[in-house]
Amino acid sequence: MLFSKALIPTLRETPADAEVISHQLMLRAGMIRKVAAGIYSYLPLAQRVFQKLKTIIREEMNRIDSQEVTLPGVQPAELWQESGRWHFYGKELLRFQDRSERDFCLGPTHEEVITDLVRRNVKSYRHLPLILYQIQTKFRDEIRPRFGVMRAREFVMKDAYSFDRDEAGAEESYHKMYQAYSRIFERCGLDFRAVEADTGAIGGSFSHEFMVLADSGEDIIVYCESCGYAANLEKAEIKPPENSPSPENQKPPDKVSTPGQKTVEEVTGFLGVSPEHLIKTLIFSTDKGPVAALVRGNHEINEIKLKNYVGCEELVLADDSLVEKVTHAPRGFAGPVGLTIPIYADHALKGVVNMVAGGNENDVHFKNVNTPRDYQVTLYADLRKAEVNDPCARCGKPLKMRKGIEVGHIFKLGTKYSETLHATYLDQAGKEKRIVMGCYGIGVGRTIAAAIEQHHDKDGIIFPPTLAPYQALILPVNINEPKVCETAFKIYNALQSDGIEALMDDRDERPGIKFKDADLIGIPLRITLGRRTFEEGKVEIRNRKTGKVDLVNVEETIGYVNDHFFGKPR
Amino acid sequence: MLFSKALIPTLRETPADAEVISHQLMLRAGMIRKVAAGIYSYLPLAQRVFQKLKTIIREEMNRIDSQEVTLPGVQPAELWQESGRWHFYGKELLRFQDRSERDFCLGPTHEEVITDLVRRNVKSYRHLPLILYQIQTKFRDEIRPRFGVMRAREFVMKDAYSFDRDEAGAEESYHKMYQAYSRIFERCGLDFRAVEADTGAIGGSFSHEFMVLADSGEDIIVYCESCGYAANLEKAEIKPPENSPSPENQKPPDKVSTPGQKTVEEVTGFLGVSPEHLIKTLIFSTDKGPVAALVRGNHEINEIKLKNYVGCEELVLADDSLVEKVTHAPRGFAGPVGLTIPIYADHALKGVVNMVAGGNENDVHFKNVNTPRDYQVTLYADLRKAEVNDPCARCGKPLKMRKGIEVGHIFKLGTKYSETLHATYLDQAGKEKRIVMGCYGIGVGRTIAAAIEQHHDKDGIIFPPTLAPYQALILPVNINEPKVCETAFKIYNALQSDGIEALMDDRDERPGIKFKDADLIGIPLRITLGRRTFEEGKVEIRNRKTGKVDLVNVEETIGYVNDHFFGKPR
Repeated sequence: MLFSKALIPTLRETPADAEVISHQLMLRAGMIRKVAAGIYSYLPLAQRVFQKLKTIIREEMNRIDSQEVTLPGVQPAELWQESGRWHFYGKELLRFQDRSERDFCLGPTHEEVITDLVRRNVKSYRHLPLILYQIQTKFRDEIRPRFGVMRAREFVMKDAYSFDRDEAGAEESYHKMYQAYSRIFERCGLDFRAVEADTGAIGGSFSHEFMVLADSGEDIIVYCESCGYAANLEKAEIKPPENSPSPENQKPPDKVSTPGQKTVEEVTGFLGVSPEHLIKTLIFSTDKGPVAALVRGNHEINEIKLKNYVGCEELVLADDSLVEKVTHAPRGFAGPVGLTIPIYADHALKGVVNMVAGGNENDVHFKNVNTPRDYQVTLYADLRKAEVNDPCARCGKPLKMRKGIEVGHIFKLGTKYSETLHATYLDQAGKEKRIVMGCYGIGVGRTIAAAIEQHHDKDGIIFPPTLAPYQALILPVNINEPKVCETAFKIYNALQSDGIEALMDDRDERPGIKFKDADLIGIPLRITLGRRTFEEGKVEIRNRKTGKVDLVNVEETIGYVNDHFFGKPR
Repeated sequence: MLFSKALIPTLRETPADAEVISHQLMLRAGMIRKVAAGIYSYLPLAQRVFQKLKTIIREEMNRIDSQEVTLPGVQPAELWQESGRWHFYGKELLRFQDRSERDFCLGPTHEEVITDLVRRNVKSYRHLPLILYQIQTKFRDEIRPRFGVMRAREFVMKDAYSFDRDEAGAEESYHKMYQAYSRIFERCGLDFRAVEADTGAIGGSFSHEFMVLADSGEDIIVYCESCGYAANLEKAEIKPPENSPSPENQKPPDKVSTPGQKTVEEVTGFLGVSPEHLIKTLIFSTDKGPVAALVRGNHEINEIKLKNYVGCEELVLADDSLVEKVTHAPRGFAGPVGLTIPIYADHALKGVVNMVAGGNENDVHFKNVNTPRDYQVTLYADLRKAEVNDPCARCGKPLKMRKGIEVGHIFKLGTKYSETLHATYLDQAGKEKRIVMGCYGIGVGRTIAAAIEQHHDKDGIIFPPTLAPYQALILPVNINEPKVCETAFKIYNALQSDGIEALMDDRDERPGIKFKDADLIGIPLRITLGRRTFEEGKVEIRNRKTGKVDLVNVEETIGYVNDHFFGKPR
């Protein structure tokens, strides 16, 4: 492609509303443009990168006999009502009516549609296992779309679904997909980790997230260097402390006035105790009724863990009226003493004595609160967010943390959807059985953004060679010198004939602009034809990643480039 | 791919609700399944055909330096309001609000979004010409989706848009695209015609439709074998007759009672005249006020032609109240005599005398109506639908007709969108000028359906080799015979290694089912391993299209298949 004919509208300035580097660089390199909040147009350079990634994904999906389909974006409400998600999915599910006033939604995911397809067309054990995938545009009406294509509302996703006869088959499909995902991200040249993720309340299921390591990541990876355990923050388990209760030190309870002191900071400051000695009492509203959760003042509740222990579908922090109803006090003074709702307490509260807690009365706290004397715990459990140096649940060694960007997610669904949607098959004995499912997703746009977060420098993008929109950029410093121009075109044509995708900067622009653009758009090799080197019969080949420059004879250019991509990289 | 692992749910019976053969065969071959009215899932076999077609399209688009982009499906109302189409586009434009109650629509086409992209990023003549394309899912809320993927609501389209400095450049882009489209449909193995199509009221523009010839087509192609003129029925021009008025034969007007006689048939039967002697008077409501259109009783009005002559944006047949207001009579008695609105008359009414026409009074017609004595014509024009043997507007020879399926449409837009959306550039002299645009579309799903309409027989689909989901189907008649099975797999593996896409029917099914499925899904070559031929060391290779069968030595199979696809076809 000739740069003069290409739509690559590079920008000098960093757009003000772009917070993360991939968003800034994708805008500056002319890859994307915003159409509305969380809705983007992908320009030719981005489109080429997309195609590279899609090809890698297709090859790896086909390799595990996963078959490509295309399911509709516009989906009838009936299927979502059948699965129950029409009710449970919140406002992220964009709903509308067609001209006949029938209810539809824009698909944020495709479990319902694909389960419907399979239940209608797969009847016998002989047609299982089956893995289907698609690469398709999804829509999720995010409340706060941000970071460019990283958290967009309209986005391209590779989603896959596996259908198996039994749990063992489903685990095999899961494992195949785990391997395929690993190969995909490896081939993209990404430094990533597969980490355990939460599976919600579905028994016997498991899930992994594929995280690209990047300091700008929104997700936190918790890992143990000792035993190899890795999980996201929602999931990361903590080894329970081995405290034992020491009843002998229990002091009598002491009601104290704490006017206007509500937060952990306020209360501990006012009473002169450290946060470890405070019980933080949080009231939650759930579909199984209100519950209280207790953690130490210096710990953070992990709502996902709590939800799994409560075994509920929905769990949100109680509003003021529910807090008042349950504690008979305004928010800020909740405590376990006298509560009549179930009380879940974090392991770290087991055996501690003489704690401070809310008094369930306005402007009142208790000192020297002890259990079981003053309150009873329904269940002690791992309820808090892991922190650096918490003990690993597997081996007890200190946990570490890094930031990551979730680019893939694999999930063993079990029979969740085959139950609600009645997807069954007849086994060898002619008996009807539920299909065991898995679902798998890769954020296509997000993977590209993550690749840029991980591969850039101050001058611009450094595309991994497998994702690069072009492999080589030819840069004649002065296109108006006929001999330089002629040789540049010769190299350009020869590269193209050899199957190397080349971008030829034939623009009559100042060299500074051309060099800056070359760095910005991050093509792996830049072949520069300057006057001085050219007079010596040489071109300058610069590796965008290493910055290494080689002077190469004009006639050896093609061989050099081919060696770089198909032989041993220099 | 192994048939046993593939999702190819073939059906024995023809589905009752499938009217056209492509719809029936795509359902029976397990290519598509309906999700909702006009909304389909595309199964693996269809997906493979899609990918073949997309690759052909991409290659031909790239060949003319058209660059691929991806524009959003969800589009903000603001752009459509700016172009005016938020108002003019009817209910086919599916509109909805997001969670913040902002108006959006599902893109049925992308002129607004792409013009917005270009106006923001292209400023100088140096960045023009530019052709951008995408292959993308569109949504049009058709009032009556039908014929399977032929007229679906959600469908995949390749749309392209050209941006040029001036009319001459725009015509060059148009011509390039015309050639590219011709190559695409040729490569698909389709018998097609490019025909002139209507351009609406945009001056100086032109348009062609690419029609696949098929008796089941909804569109009518009008063509002249003598001069090569070809157009769709909306556009097809008719040479005006060379009558001259013969005032000497004019009889005096005669008011007659025609109680309850309203239609052409009723009136001409009642009065004992032939339809050629009746003036059919049609009242239309337009955004420029009501107009009357006159055609002979045996002719059909062409509303597109009328609309272009009136020069209005909207034109619909008047409702009863407007007919009464304009004619002072109920519907069925309209005539030109005494009308005060503009009267457009078809050329065929020029110079005719003593006609029957409505009396603009209940149950009344006039006989011997003549112009200009009894009414005045605002404009004589070509207002009617062409019929077989009408004289060609170019050469006067009789026109012929065939049915076709519109699979592509190219349109020189001129400055329609660059005017309303202010898409301008600075020319070499630094003067601001409007960008001249073209738009171009290929219905991807419809092209595949059209290919099936044109290429099938009573047993099933006969895929053109370039679109076929697999090139060869290997059919071991009895998979349980170890030697047959082993050889079949050898051939299968050898074909795959050679880059031939093969489907291996490894199912333990009755031979009848396997042969029927093979015919139904239409793979170009079927390689059968039966016991008898196999014992002679041979396989049977059958050409799905010609039915020709060759007995080939097992070891020569790969060479035969390669010759067929890459050498001279046998």
